[in-house]
Amino acid sequence: MPQGQPAVVPNDGLTTRQRRNRPLVMVHTGVGKGKSTAAFGMALRAWNQGWPVGVFQFVKSAKWKVGEENALKVLGASGEGGRVDWHKMGEGWSWIQRDAEQSNEDKAREGWEQVKRDLAAETYRFYVLDEFAYPLHWGWVDTAEVVEVLANRPGSQHVVITGRNAPAELCEFADLVTDMSKVRHPMDAGQKGQRGIEW
Amino acid sequence: MPQGQPAVVPNDGLTTRQRRNRPLVMVHTGVGKGKSTAAFGMALRAWNQGWPVGVFQFVKSAKWKVGEENALKVLGASGEGGRVDWHKMGEGWSWIQRDAEQSNEDKAREGWEQVKRDLAAETYRFYVLDEFAYPLHWGWVDTAEVVEVLANRPGSQHVVITGRNAPAELCEFADLVTDMSKVRHPMDAGQKGQRGIEW
Repeated sequence: MPQGQPAVVPNDGLTTRQRRNRPLVMVHTGVGKGKSTAAFGMALRAWNQGWPVGVFQFVKSAKWKVGEENALKVLGASGEGGRVDWHKMGEGWSWIQRDAEQSNEDKAREGWEQVKRDLAAETYRFYVLDEFAYPLHWGWVDTAEVVEVLANRPGSQHVVITGRNAPAELCEFADLVTDMSKVRHPMDAGQKGQRGIEW
Repeated sequence: MPQGQPAVVPNDGLTTRQRRNRPLVMVHTGVGKGKSTAAFGMALRAWNQGWPVGVFQFVKSAKWKVGEENALKVLGASGEGGRVDWHKMGEGWSWIQRDAEQSNEDKAREGWEQVKRDLAAETYRFYVLDEFAYPLHWGWVDTAEVVEVLANRPGSQHVVITGRNAPAELCEFADLVTDMSKVRHPMDAGQKGQRGIEW
């Protein structure tokens, strides 16, 4: 709750306001549901502040997340709040030629290269790197480089990274890490995913 | 992931499709971030299906969640997707007279009475009972009654309940329970909540 008081006040030479507005790196990991949905929920807040929002979807999906995608596109085009750019892997990143021969590994790396360019240019103020934990976990993108780029990003750019198995090195660096644990899931009772809920 | 296969196929007399489309009760609990944000992220999917969405905010908050509220209101009024009704406690539920004398306990109970009426009338297809775990935990609203009402709700109405300390009786009944655990939080490093992130 925002009303809460921090447990410690660090001796970092920052005022409370400076510290409060420090841009964040956030990680949503774990095997439970809600990692991406919470990230998109946060994007609503960023949109509401008028911040430009960049979504980078690092895992191909057919119908998955169309709800969030449509909603954020309608919001971005509403004339209120910030603009929203949605970059989707698997349909070709929006900035590269479609190339059926390109491996997912290459696509993930190209996606990260674009994120780096956008961070350097301060294109967005809020980034959702959706499912980015997977290419990190698989070693397709180097976690140490990601941490270094994030640590040195200019200006005030918040970044939220989702996906299972977020590398420890990333979690140690991140300002906020939430682990979504599965306590109970309909699939355990033989129920498959359904529209409106899973996508 | 919706691509996943259920671990068991129950002998419940339902077809896969019937079972798939069975309406769900979902609980987001735990001390970590993301409980409400994930619920509002799910609401985007429901909205995108054209479903009427009812949000019932059970804890008063000034600036908290204005991002989600504004976003869902803009979406609800966009002419696309479903309509969104946002019922807020603390500013007076929208259906009762403002009464400064009324206790939070009474307000929470009135909120639940309205939810019961809406479930009976099938007013919405997706309900966010935000922070509803608190009045349950505090005993203001009877969990056994909530479970009974949810178990007997008509039609196809999904309900997501958020908040710390969701009662065990509710979690045992729910189809999906996710526990959001705090691994690391900026407040531990002396950083207070900030706009665009916490609200």
